[in-house]
Amino acid sequence: MKIAILGYGNLGKGIEAACAQNPDMELVGVFTRRDPSTVKTLTNVKTYHADTILDMKDNIDVLVICGGSATDLPKQTPEYAKYFNVIDSFDTHAKIPEHFANVDEAAKAGGHIAMISVGWDPGMFSLNRLYANAILPEGKDYTFWGKGVSQGHSDAIRRIEGVQDAKQYTIPVEAALHAVRNGENPDLTTRQKHTRECFVVAKEGADKARIEKEIKEMPNYFADYDTTVHFISQEELNRDHAGIPHGGFVFRTGKTGLNKEHDHVIEYRLKLDSNPEFTASVLVAYARAAYRMNREGMSGCKTVFDVAPAYLSPLSAEEMRAHLL
Amino acid sequence: MKIAILGYGNLGKGIEAACAQNPDMELVGVFTRRDPSTVKTLTNVKTYHADTILDMKDNIDVLVICGGSATDLPKQTPEYAKYFNVIDSFDTHAKIPEHFANVDEAAKAGGHIAMISVGWDPGMFSLNRLYANAILPEGKDYTFWGKGVSQGHSDAIRRIEGVQDAKQYTIPVEAALHAVRNGENPDLTTRQKHTRECFVVAKEGADKARIEKEIKEMPNYFADYDTTVHFISQEELNRDHAGIPHGGFVFRTGKTGLNKEHDHVIEYRLKLDSNPEFTASVLVAYARAAYRMNREGMSGCKTVFDVAPAYLSPLSAEEMRAHLL
Repeated sequence: MKIAILGYGNLGKGIEAACAQNPDMELVGVFTRRDPSTVKTLTNVKTYHADTILDMKDNIDVLVICGGSATDLPKQTPEYAKYFNVIDSFDTHAKIPEHFANVDEAAKAGGHIAMISVGWDPGMFSLNRLYANAILPEGKDYTFWGKGVSQGHSDAIRRIEGVQDAKQYTIPVEAALHAVRNGENPDLTTRQKHTRECFVVAKEGADKARIEKEIKEMPNYFADYDTTVHFISQEELNRDHAGIPHGGFVFRTGKTGLNKEHDHVIEYRLKLDSNPEFTASVLVAYARAAYRMNREGMSGCKTVFDVAPAYLSPLSAEEMRAHLL
Repeated sequence: MKIAILGYGNLGKGIEAACAQNPDMELVGVFTRRDPSTVKTLTNVKTYHADTILDMKDNIDVLVICGGSATDLPKQTPEYAKYFNVIDSFDTHAKIPEHFANVDEAAKAGGHIAMISVGWDPGMFSLNRLYANAILPEGKDYTFWGKGVSQGHSDAIRRIEGVQDAKQYTIPVEAALHAVRNGENPDLTTRQKHTRECFVVAKEGADKARIEKEIKEMPNYFADYDTTVHFISQEELNRDHAGIPHGGFVFRTGKTGLNKEHDHVIEYRLKLDSNPEFTASVLVAYARAAYRMNREGMSGCKTVFDVAPAYLSPLSAEEMRAHLL
């Protein structure tokens, strides 16, 4: 199937790399709002200006939209769903119902599949919440994130006066993980679930004590957490904190038996060296599903909940049953 | 929806308990090959002889077949798929393709959904293998079982002369789990993955040294493993080893990036106090899916790979998107 990318940041580059791992996919082009002659792709895939994308309409089976959730995707996904099968990683959980409604209308009008909110959270984590809730109706859900880089929290630190650069790691509290895994069903406060570790490059002459105080007291972002702040040099930040790792845990603990006498723990864990590349790998698998579902006559907005797992695999149904079941 | 159970052993009892946890399900009867007057159900659900099941045809939405994989299910599932939506937990991995073909024909002829090989392995573990393989095409799969009771291995010990009773636990090797979780991609022998621990009640005057030797040298079952044998009294076995716990781990480790520079670990873990009750809970969720898919006009044999996750949840699509995605 023929894949195109709209938006060439970290996620777009991840899609490019993921397509190279899937022999049934051909990456036909990267579309950008920048001057395409200035955008150099990793695999020499051709770049085009986003405004010319309709010229390629018949040569694209699925368009992977790699914009941001704040302003890009709410506009782009409904717009392009009119013309293409599309997929996005819209991750503003609270606004998913609104995004779904907008995209569904456009996709149905165009007769296309539009797969939204694909990735790992929302995405694989959501799937695990759904499966585990369906299996264990009486139980408790826990989601932990990390250890990983939170872009939003890193950005928040960078906006503080006197900060030159920063990277923030979200870290699940080991004792909390242990208690949940042990079936203790703890009630956990925000502080008991995660800690935050910040690596900060201060500008020359900046008041480090004030910066540290501002970070630790920042409402919503840090005030409710045990936060550690390390001041390091730009060289150290570049050398030791260049990656974008992430991951986390989804647990459901529940009881079965007529007298609720048996306890069960379902745990799903991701440990990711590269958040954007893993997200891209999930998107590419669901791009395969979008293409196949549309070929079977389906249209409209879909989420990971609506996709039978078989659509994701390049294997035939017979191969899957023989080797994976 | 109206559920009936065929076969009232541990799994059948688990289905009965699971139905009680799902308000959208009504258990209408337990069908048995025994004299139904001798079978007392946990919740006073009525019992019927299996031969009378067709009389209830119009009052059963899904029949949950709780027989064994060796001889019951290969006959029962194709037979009953002619008349009912059915679901089974057929778990002889090597014979799934054959079972699928037999059941598919019967279910299509009858216009019903027949969901086979549902549970946790095959079942939830299979799903996790499929998802993880689709996301990380270049990687390695690892499945570990336990700590849990293996019925087959316990039975094998009981067949040894001089053994009165026995229980066998399969235990994953911690060092192997650690290496896999750490992304080391080890090549593991059978012995390096699991150990086997046996609790044996010897008959009075039996030669314990011979029993231990026979266990440890038993081909396929124990010879390839580090096996520990404990001789205990029947009272101790009854007191300390009455449960049927199980569980395990499915890992996929894989690489992304144009130069395979990033490592990822996907881990799915189950820790189950009661193997049959958890299996039953999975079956009941897929019974819901079978009923819904059939109402939408689908028929034929299906596995967990063919079921869009949304069919499993009692929540509406809107609720799922708002609360689980």
